[in-house]
Amino acid sequence: MRNSRRGDVDPFIVMDVLAKARAAEAEGRHIVHMEVGQPGTGAPATARAALSRALEEGPLGYTQATGLPELRAAIAQLYEKWYGIQLDPGRVVVTAGASGAFVLAFSALFDTGARVGIGRPGYPSYRQILRALGLEAVDIETLAKNRLQPVPEDVAAHGLDGLLVASPANPSGTMLDAVALGALIDVCKDTGAAFISDEIYHGLSYGERAVSALELSDEVYVINSFSKYFSMTGWRVGWMVVPEAHVRRVENLAANLFICAPHAAQVAALGALEAHEECLANLSVYAENRRLMLEGLPKAGFDRIAPPDGAFYIYADVSEHTCNSLAFCDELLDQAGVAVAPGLDFDPERGHQTVRFSYAGSTADITEGLERLAAYMTRRSV
Amino acid sequence: MRNSRRGDVDPFIVMDVLAKARAAEAEGRHIVHMEVGQPGTGAPATARAALSRALEEGPLGYTQATGLPELRAAIAQLYEKWYGIQLDPGRVVVTAGASGAFVLAFSALFDTGARVGIGRPGYPSYRQILRALGLEAVDIETLAKNRLQPVPEDVAAHGLDGLLVASPANPSGTMLDAVALGALIDVCKDTGAAFISDEIYHGLSYGERAVSALELSDEVYVINSFSKYFSMTGWRVGWMVVPEAHVRRVENLAANLFICAPHAAQVAALGALEAHEECLANLSVYAENRRLMLEGLPKAGFDRIAPPDGAFYIYADVSEHTCNSLAFCDELLDQAGVAVAPGLDFDPERGHQTVRFSYAGSTADITEGLERLAAYMTRRSV
Repeated sequence: MRNSRRGDVDPFIVMDVLAKARAAEAEGRHIVHMEVGQPGTGAPATARAALSRALEEGPLGYTQATGLPELRAAIAQLYEKWYGIQLDPGRVVVTAGASGAFVLAFSALFDTGARVGIGRPGYPSYRQILRALGLEAVDIETLAKNRLQPVPEDVAAHGLDGLLVASPANPSGTMLDAVALGALIDVCKDTGAAFISDEIYHGLSYGERAVSALELSDEVYVINSFSKYFSMTGWRVGWMVVPEAHVRRVENLAANLFICAPHAAQVAALGALEAHEECLANLSVYAENRRLMLEGLPKAGFDRIAPPDGAFYIYADVSEHTCNSLAFCDELLDQAGVAVAPGLDFDPERGHQTVRFSYAGSTADITEGLERLAAYMTRRSV
Repeated sequence: MRNSRRGDVDPFIVMDVLAKARAAEAEGRHIVHMEVGQPGTGAPATARAALSRALEEGPLGYTQATGLPELRAAIAQLYEKWYGIQLDPGRVVVTAGASGAFVLAFSALFDTGARVGIGRPGYPSYRQILRALGLEAVDIETLAKNRLQPVPEDVAAHGLDGLLVASPANPSGTMLDAVALGALIDVCKDTGAAFISDEIYHGLSYGERAVSALELSDEVYVINSFSKYFSMTGWRVGWMVVPEAHVRRVENLAANLFICAPHAAQVAALGALEAHEECLANLSVYAENRRLMLEGLPKAGFDRIAPPDGAFYIYADVSEHTCNSLAFCDELLDQAGVAVAPGLDFDPERGHQTVRFSYAGSTADITEGLERLAAYMTRRSV
């Protein structure tokens, strides 16, 4: 049977690592999960309670394509609370996770062959979604001196139709401050490129708070999700804020491509927005885990890392240990019982000598994982 | 800010009609909903119970990209039960509704500009999703003598790279028997066109059961959902069966485009597969509603209808009453308090003189709606 070139996307390697880790667990081994970017905790209690009530009450049929009005309003209020900005709820579109938002944003903004810049290293699915939509993902090789983030010169240098940035970034955890973010938005405006800000790790930072592109401009697409800060990965509910003039076109795309985001997840998300203490408690756990990682990873031989401003990742250069990150991660899983993501997911060029450690699990797991890594790396170097 | 041509998709008109109906209700009017293709009932009790248990138990994080293994296995068993065929669960991919399956199928099969045939009238989002992906939706004008379904000659006549059919169809409710379906599959195989079978209304038929393309060939994509027969529209969980050789490419696309279908909905879907009696009871309601519609619609002046083999729709030619189905549906909403879908959603050419009635609501609603329609159409003709 026929197939397409655009459908020849790369595997999401971390999902394959997760599958290998699960297979090892099925054989009775204990594995510490530092591979997948997923909180060890489930949805907040307020989220589960809201859904439990809704299950008794109504049929949970289709919602409006843009989402439940009360959820859109509550998300708009979050912008007041987090950034002190007034946001019209009519500009908020509830989506099937950030993933659904990327598909909507790219469809709304770009025609076949459009050149969309993404920082390398970066979230692997950016590249694959662009490819599946017949768009061109343009790799921007980022530099350590720029905190592994794109810089304004990249936009013209690559002749971009659009630029997608993430702050805090995945896999590096680095952030763009208001000056750096504003410079990128400005250059996109000047060159007519669309600016898309992936803010899925907002709320998860350990020094300064992250700056939203919406604080600097209304003429941007901003993507966020309940997956990370609100600990609701598997629920597939996120949102996008779009310019006023784009609301109707995004609504039409959403109605046709998705009909709506999952109703049950929208109800749970509305409940999650009440979970202030639980979310802050999770953040404290990540902060402690991060402290342990920054102390323990260098002791295990992983001392060349990107500045971990936010998210729950540490991106490490492992060129002292290997020139094949896939084999190295297999080795860590087999020999140390620690699942880690190979850098090739995030950087097809340089990622054979990098890995990403996630510290989104429990502190006990992180402690155990660090001990195993240190013990194994000592054995390995003998 | 820039935008794309591919993003200029048409509104999903029925969603706009629903919004108008809701606005009328908000003003205190009582509206009978015959516009939206959504059961009045919610998810089966077994589905809600399964989710309630799961909410207590685990974090409901990401599932495998192809879905929970136990759900894939249970779906495969449905093919044994419904059609008497053995299906490898490894070929089942759980998706974010049938909508998610269309995006995956089109991405896996077609490159930019590929010509994909769809029957007209047909489900409007086929056309819009194809457009959003940079593919060409090729309208096949279907004939009443062919039950408003494509015929084999259409494939060569239109130079198709793929053909998408639905049986039972939306909006017409007509079905393809094994001979007609087999002839379409054969001509696609002969010409190298991909064959996609939308089977979302399977289980909802009132004479012969619907035939699955999988009974006739393994070299097809088959799409289905928990939305209709299992009454779970808002949950956004469906599935796709793909040829063995396509599993890995579809898995890679799914991981990158969606990560996974909503976990909570997958748990509920697994519960729904146990809801034999409740689903059959819903089917009895639709059967009674259909009987009332076939009796009542002609009395109200709607007697030119497509053979309603399955689904829960009646597609009527209203050219005796109007040449503007949009205005006519507005009129029925305003004057009769009955929301109906204008044919333009389903057939941009001929749909200005057709409408779709859904009978997925309660029997009391259908009875009331038919009375209102008859009374208003009598007033109108005076």
